[in-house]
Amino acid sequence: MKKNISGEFVKSARHRTIAFILLFSLMLSSVVYGQVERPRLLVSAADVRAIREDLGKYPWFDKVYGEAKDAVDRACANPVDVPKPVDAGGYTHEKHKQNYREMQAAGILFQVTKDERYARFIRDMLLQYAALYPTLGKHPMAASAEYGRLFWQTLNETVWMVHVAQAYDCVYDWLTPADRETIEGKLLRPMIKFFTVEHAATVDRIHNHGTWMVAAVGMLGYALNDKNLVDMALYGTKKDGKAGFLRQMELLFSPDGYYTEGAYYVRYAIQPFIIFAQAIEHNQPELRIFEFRNQILRKAVAAELQLVDGNGRFIPINDALKEMSVLSPETVLALDVAYLRYGDGGGWLAIAQKQGKVSMDAAGLAVARALQNQSKQPVFMFKSVEYTDGPLGDEGGIGILRSGAPGDQSMLVMKYGAQGFGHGHFDKLEFLYYDRGREIVQDYGAVRFINIEPKFGGRYLPETETWSKQTIAHNTVTVDGQSHYGGVYRVAQKSHADRHFFSALDPNLQVMSGKAQGVYPGVSMQRTMAMIRDSAFAGPIVLDLFRLDSKQKHQYDLPLYYMGQFIHTNIPYKAYDTEQTRLGPANGYQHLWKEAEGKAAGSLAFTWLQGDRYYSMISATDTFTSVFFTRIGAGDPDFNLRSEPGIMMRRNAASTVFATALEPHGYFEPVNEISLNATGRIKELKVLVSDAEATVVEINGTGSLHWIFAIVNGEASTDATHSVAARGKTFSWKGNYYLWKN
Amino acid sequence: MKKNISGEFVKSARHRTIAFILLFSLMLSSVVYGQVERPRLLVSAADVRAIREDLGKYPWFDKVYGEAKDAVDRACANPVDVPKPVDAGGYTHEKHKQNYREMQAAGILFQVTKDERYARFIRDMLLQYAALYPTLGKHPMAASAEYGRLFWQTLNETVWMVHVAQAYDCVYDWLTPADRETIEGKLLRPMIKFFTVEHAATVDRIHNHGTWMVAAVGMLGYALNDKNLVDMALYGTKKDGKAGFLRQMELLFSPDGYYTEGAYYVRYAIQPFIIFAQAIEHNQPELRIFEFRNQILRKAVAAELQLVDGNGRFIPINDALKEMSVLSPETVLALDVAYLRYGDGGGWLAIAQKQGKVSMDAAGLAVARALQNQSKQPVFMFKSVEYTDGPLGDEGGIGILRSGAPGDQSMLVMKYGAQGFGHGHFDKLEFLYYDRGREIVQDYGAVRFINIEPKFGGRYLPETETWSKQTIAHNTVTVDGQSHYGGVYRVAQKSHADRHFFSALDPNLQVMSGKAQGVYPGVSMQRTMAMIRDSAFAGPIVLDLFRLDSKQKHQYDLPLYYMGQFIHTNIPYKAYDTEQTRLGPANGYQHLWKEAEGKAAGSLAFTWLQGDRYYSMISATDTFTSVFFTRIGAGDPDFNLRSEPGIMMRRNAASTVFATALEPHGYFEPVNEISLNATGRIKELKVLVSDAEATVVEINGTGSLHWIFAIVNGEASTDATHSVAARGKTFSWKGNYYLWKN
Repeated sequence: MKKNISGEFVKSARHRTIAFILLFSLMLSSVVYGQVERPRLLVSAADVRAIREDLGKYPWFDKVYGEAKDAVDRACANPVDVPKPVDAGGYTHEKHKQNYREMQAAGILFQVTKDERYARFIRDMLLQYAALYPTLGKHPMAASAEYGRLFWQTLNETVWMVHVAQAYDCVYDWLTPADRETIEGKLLRPMIKFFTVEHAATVDRIHNHGTWMVAAVGMLGYALNDKNLVDMALYGTKKDGKAGFLRQMELLFSPDGYYTEGAYYVRYAIQPFIIFAQAIEHNQPELRIFEFRNQILRKAVAAELQLVDGNGRFIPINDALKEMSVLSPETVLALDVAYLRYGDGGGWLAIAQKQGKVSMDAAGLAVARALQNQSKQPVFMFKSVEYTDGPLGDEGGIGILRSGAPGDQSMLVMKYGAQGFGHGHFDKLEFLYYDRGREIVQDYGAVRFINIEPKFGGRYLPETETWSKQTIAHNTVTVDGQSHYGGVYRVAQKSHADRHFFSALDPNLQVMSGKAQGVYPGVSMQRTMAMIRDSAFAGPIVLDLFRLDSKQKHQYDLPLYYMGQFIHTNIPYKAYDTEQTRLGPANGYQHLWKEAEGKAAGSLAFTWLQGDRYYSMISATDTFTSVFFTRIGAGDPDFNLRSEPGIMMRRNAASTVFATALEPHGYFEPVNEISLNATGRIKELKVLVSDAEATVVEINGTGSLHWIFAIVNGEASTDATHSVAARGKTFSWKGNYYLWKN
Repeated sequence: MKKNISGEFVKSARHRTIAFILLFSLMLSSVVYGQVERPRLLVSAADVRAIREDLGKYPWFDKVYGEAKDAVDRACANPVDVPKPVDAGGYTHEKHKQNYREMQAAGILFQVTKDERYARFIRDMLLQYAALYPTLGKHPMAASAEYGRLFWQTLNETVWMVHVAQAYDCVYDWLTPADRETIEGKLLRPMIKFFTVEHAATVDRIHNHGTWMVAAVGMLGYALNDKNLVDMALYGTKKDGKAGFLRQMELLFSPDGYYTEGAYYVRYAIQPFIIFAQAIEHNQPELRIFEFRNQILRKAVAAELQLVDGNGRFIPINDALKEMSVLSPETVLALDVAYLRYGDGGGWLAIAQKQGKVSMDAAGLAVARALQNQSKQPVFMFKSVEYTDGPLGDEGGIGILRSGAPGDQSMLVMKYGAQGFGHGHFDKLEFLYYDRGREIVQDYGAVRFINIEPKFGGRYLPETETWSKQTIAHNTVTVDGQSHYGGVYRVAQKSHADRHFFSALDPNLQVMSGKAQGVYPGVSMQRTMAMIRDSAFAGPIVLDLFRLDSKQKHQYDLPLYYMGQFIHTNIPYKAYDTEQTRLGPANGYQHLWKEAEGKAAGSLAFTWLQGDRYYSMISATDTFTSVFFTRIGAGDPDFNLRSEPGIMMRRNAASTVFATALEPHGYFEPVNEISLNATGRIKELKVLVSDAEATVVEINGTGSLHWIFAIVNGEASTDATHSVAARGKTFSWKGNYYLWKN
């Protein structure tokens, strides 16, 4: 993405929009924003009146309001504590976080109730901060250039300001001029100067830390009626539109709303977008910020809500933590504001209902009202969808195929986009597979125990770098034991995979295909995944064709990190069950125990049990293939990793296709002691042909099941016709793929 | 238990009861049972009338009735299939099981509806069986002396008969004499002869297979109005009362109703007790079978329902499968009949409600009626309770301590009873610990994938013997690397541990203590576990004092199979993270990977995370102690074991005490990213003294926490006073234990 801020992107059509807005805005530079009533940030004066009027009408809103009131009332009854900052995750850190949350809520409560206790609470606390702040130098735990004063990193400090600007705005008119002078002169302006001067680079950074920064600067700008600050926030410190909030809205999302770091990160990153957009809308409605870039904020929220498993947990690509879900407080706010501004995006109220709470603002009130008035149970609309990656949408993307009703739904995710900054993984063309809300084939996510102090203070653990970022930790091919792009971030960040085609029009035959060039010198990669629903099977079948093309011979390793209990395999193997060594010395291999090793000559079959269903992989191994059973957890002296299994195929070849089917089958119910169809139906896969034009595979199973599946390897086109000869037959079709059933 | 049937037990008071009943029954030998109306087994004629009358009134009953009717209607519409038996778990096995279930249900439906379709269904099927049965020899898959003809083992065949006797009874009056002659002459009497002659030893066996057998013989006896069969069933083949159903009711349960094989097995074994008791009550009410042995059947059901975790899953001691729970169909029947005969035993309706179904008989009707009419939500009464083991209650027992409301309840289980037959484990004085419905310290259970055909046909796997039965697989002490009693079943079955004391009167200080002699020559073992609730802690603290006393030096290994994620330990250790070997060569050690090894000199502290809580063990290691971090899964070429962690302390000593505290603490909530108190409060345990009279330990923690806990090692008495000197102080108390808090 850095390539974009350094200039090449200036020519894009999108950027002309900012230029226009900028011009418009500078022309209106004499407008004094201060003529609008207060409060004027996340919550407007009109919002306050609506809240006051609607209290007691909507239980969903009353609940959050009551909880906030209880919490703030408790805080008001206790002495203010503004401790000298000493730690990066201990008492003082948490106390300063608690303080800003309580001040923000107290501000709204003061506006709604006019109870001066709340205003005094904010004033007293801000005066204490105003006494403390001038005494602070660099935070004692500061570890990087992004150091703060109140907090160990600027990020937390900007979040503090985003909240405090709101609280200050709410009591601004109530404060005496003397108090205002103290608070602004000793605290708010020095801090904002610290941001815009010492951390000017962060203000201009196209990154979620940058978004928090511009939100902090801009929110305070509106609160202080300071156009200079607002313009810096919107257009960058140089006010030329090459940085700042609008530029971030252009560069951090693809045209579809996909955030390049993935769903786990957009959950966090979307907050300052949403909060600051609300403030902009309240102060500069003429900017039509919620319409900006074809409603990019709506698209961003919609994409976030789709990038989840059946339980609403975010797809754990990149450095994600698996438990994080749409129930998070960040998503509550994002969903509510999106609902307020754009209406229901497809069963969003179903998620709001599961969240069990709304935000304490006009957006939360709107959702509470809608939940109250809805006549039928809302259902979230999970869908098959492709999101492009990159600001122009030309850096590949991510594809999601879904099949079945919620609760009995299969989901297949394939990643063929950009690296996604520093939290990105070297995982081009990897896939994840879910069924019935369970992980069946997993991405490990990050190695981190968030906020768990004994685990390295809750920070990312070293194994995030050495294991979970590495290619071998993913369900994709590692060539010659090296991670993608040599495992070098700088190279990976400049590169991306490409979409080949994506089609989810036919619910019985959904297919997506991605390509990756330059991941390894001289090796082309293409992966095509299909989700096929057929009455011959209890659930949708997944077909996976991973084609590697090279002039030289390489070692191709393709692991499958299945979740569940090993049930059966058809290959002979040697178990290393008295002594165990690692699969390799580096690039993630050092974290895999080699539990067993076998050879497959015909089709490899492997069955495992997860939840109430069996799953089988059947893979063509007409070329000689080694098979390894692995377990995560080697090279982990601090016990940071989860002990989880995998199966890996290894093939030494120049060009080859890993052709695999995944079949869900049977039923297991231990309380009634029922086990049905523990053996699947598919018995064999064969690659009939794979060349520059197409790949054709044969799938055979019991009951005379005989399918032929063909996909195009050359240029994608839904209109082109193809004709391929293989084993004495000719297969002809039109479009990017075709499935023949016997 | 065998010692009992071989004669020593004849002198017991209990046996006089049987002798009396026997005398009474033989005196009344001229009574013809046949004068009661049919049906007369599980369901009586009066029951049928009640069901007919109440249909449509109680949705809980209507549901099971409707489901049974749908299933049998489908069966009636299809051709009868009575296949030649060929397999031990495949189609023919399952088909014969399905047939008896459908016949039994059809019998009741015929009685209720008088629809002759159901009678014809039973007749046609029985005639096919009558044609098949005489052609059968020993089942082709027969593997032991307990072979059957229709099934590979007699067990299934007796279950078949228990159901078919009911069906036959229901259509008896409807059948023509000629059909009756065919069915009885070719099928029922030959089969019962096969049972009572070729398998006479099983009829007289004190074992759950014996109970199914006598139920089969007795039920058919009532159906055929054959007093000879009924008497054999009740009093053994010799009709002397030394075997048979009543004797089984005496010998298979302790006076408290504890079934010596444990909860998982009583679930299965209770069925023939319950079913046959209903038949006896309907035919010989004068035996007052439900009053027998002070209502032993009530006690057995009550104990079964208490021997569960917070989710109703049976405590997985012995060869148990962990998922099995009170929701099982066997428990539905047991609970319903117990409810019918004894009324509510303490929130039983809450379990019935969770089961979501009732049995299709008068018992189910009674529960359905009660569920319909209850005015408030029933709550099952979990309690702290001790059950003695052995028919006289003098073979030790099992203790359960519970603390807290359901949902936030801790449970501690200690096993100090008998071996429990062939499915018993060598696990004297082991413990299990649950919190908030989760396993915190586990018993592995059996190694078996029930009914999963590719896993050895769903049978017990070899690792049940080599791993899960062995002592090292349990949270108790293994001495010199050998399992208890040398791992010899014959020796273990003759032995048992002993209760020392058990007190759950004070909910804030519950203590249980067991002893075991002769488990290892020359080594005495005593374990005392306390559950202490104190406002200093978020949840109850567990104290565990495991005393070993010997003249010779031994190697004492005490593992803890914690469930969850390793968070922190205070000891230095070496991780075997590039190469891993097994902990030992045999006796279960061959299944443990040695992941790391350390030394503890002060107190060992180890913290893990399970669910939303942290747990810490803190153990006194004032004697030099080796610590091993282990993982289950070595020596397992077929991947039958679950990969789960453990921590093990090893000490070489003659006499020693492992003094350990388990502290639940803190809170983890990943969606809101909250982690509180990941470090516990207890910092140190010290054994102040441990001698023939008493053990005194000191517990120290943050915030000046300073506790002294004393327990009596000599004879238990609540009245005796004790005075022990340790480290210059004298500790005096009355009773079996005492806790001083600073």
